[in-house]
Amino acid sequence: MSGNPSPAALRAAVRSQAHTGNTSGLAPGYVQCNIVILPCDWAYDFLRFCQLNPRPCPLIGMSEPGDPHLPALGDLDIRTDVPAYRVFEDGRPVDEVHSVEALWRDDLVTFALGCSFSFEEALLAGGLEVRNMSQKCNVPMYRSSVTCAAAGPFRSQMVVSMRPFSAADAIRAIQICTRFPSVHGAPIHLGDPQLIGIADLQTPDYGDAVSVHPTEIPLFWACGVTPQLALETAQPPFAITHSPGCMLVTDVRNSALAVL
Amino acid sequence: MSGNPSPAALRAAVRSQAHTGNTSGLAPGYVQCNIVILPCDWAYDFLRFCQLNPRPCPLIGMSEPGDPHLPALGDLDIRTDVPAYRVFEDGRPVDEVHSVEALWRDDLVTFALGCSFSFEEALLAGGLEVRNMSQKCNVPMYRSSVTCAAAGPFRSQMVVSMRPFSAADAIRAIQICTRFPSVHGAPIHLGDPQLIGIADLQTPDYGDAVSVHPTEIPLFWACGVTPQLALETAQPPFAITHSPGCMLVTDVRNSALAVL
Repeated sequence: MSGNPSPAALRAAVRSQAHTGNTSGLAPGYVQCNIVILPCDWAYDFLRFCQLNPRPCPLIGMSEPGDPHLPALGDLDIRTDVPAYRVFEDGRPVDEVHSVEALWRDDLVTFALGCSFSFEEALLAGGLEVRNMSQKCNVPMYRSSVTCAAAGPFRSQMVVSMRPFSAADAIRAIQICTRFPSVHGAPIHLGDPQLIGIADLQTPDYGDAVSVHPTEIPLFWACGVTPQLALETAQPPFAITHSPGCMLVTDVRNSALAVL
Repeated sequence: MSGNPSPAALRAAVRSQAHTGNTSGLAPGYVQCNIVILPCDWAYDFLRFCQLNPRPCPLIGMSEPGDPHLPALGDLDIRTDVPAYRVFEDGRPVDEVHSVEALWRDDLVTFALGCSFSFEEALLAGGLEVRNMSQKCNVPMYRSSVTCAAAGPFRSQMVVSMRPFSAADAIRAIQICTRFPSVHGAPIHLGDPQLIGIADLQTPDYGDAVSVHPTEIPLFWACGVTPQLALETAQPPFAITHSPGCMLVTDVRNSALAVL
């Protein structure tokens, strides 16, 4: 998919499986979401996990049990409108598919969580360089030593993403991201990676390493991969998530998420 | 002067010279100002210097030529209501006095500039530790390598103040101070002091050194001492400032300066 499709046009292409890949940079200006789908008897604990850990798990939308629609986020069907899904059994990924129609159950609850694409767009609009974008790679992500608050079986270290900036741009990045608490908000750490248990910036646990110049300061944001780690720990018998980078594209404007 | 006097009561004590010293911590909740008084034929260039350099020189009030009152800031007389003044001739300090009534001229223009006391109060209210306050000393200040924009004869390196914080508190401090652009606003730098020409944090050019713990990050704010440096360079034949730490206490609430 190329050009600047509308969210609805992009979802139509996804639904027909004309587009089955990464959504980064597509439908610019619109919120893309991390997706977690769970049986409703697991939903309360996961909802509580999101409530306790809003930085890694900023909840933007949630469905009724069995209802594949999230009308607040657009005219969409969660069974077909994510380009690629991961299917989990007992906390382990067992399949990657482009539709979950065949797997749908009337007890499934969908959670849509904010994603860093929104704040990266705001950083770019603010004239800042986002290293993973200029290097055309995935953002580097790390399992930090920061422990999320547990909710029932859901427990996890916080996964963080890292973007390096000059000092002046770091200050500006903090200001810009503060306006967007529902897409991870301000960084949770800056400076020495070891203070949050990261031994080496050049060996991320997920994504790709990016260059960090000697005068730059690494900024660390709470990351939407965290709930996938919590899923692995909680081991629900059945769950579905989006595949990393293949997000649900919504009709909500990024600008609508700004708290001021 | 002890207790929590109102701004008017404090100014009355200053006017009678019952209080002739530091105003730090007095009249909590109210804006205190850096003062620069210049002949009106120097006022245009200094006003332009403030306009070009709002971070070190945030202009909060300004008088008409010869008028010792600043009604927007309170019922005050600038000739008597500052605890201690410095008198400058040709850019050099020549005297320190507790009243400038005998020196007043009908061509003098008063500039009142925002001061870090306001944002320090906001940081404390936010639960942060302000090191120079907990160590009961003056904040350390440094002549940085950052060059202010020049306006006629007024030119200066930027003087910066430094306060150390943990990474999480540094991020919060940036958020808090961003709300207060008229009292220096967000830091202008964080991290490596050498990047802004500071060789050693423990030997400040003004004020006192404070301890910086190994895991802390120094944050640097534009400082109201900068205009005094610009005065030294510009060498107006006559000028008056407050003496450091002995500020004009106004009736404006700190909270009224918050932009949101």
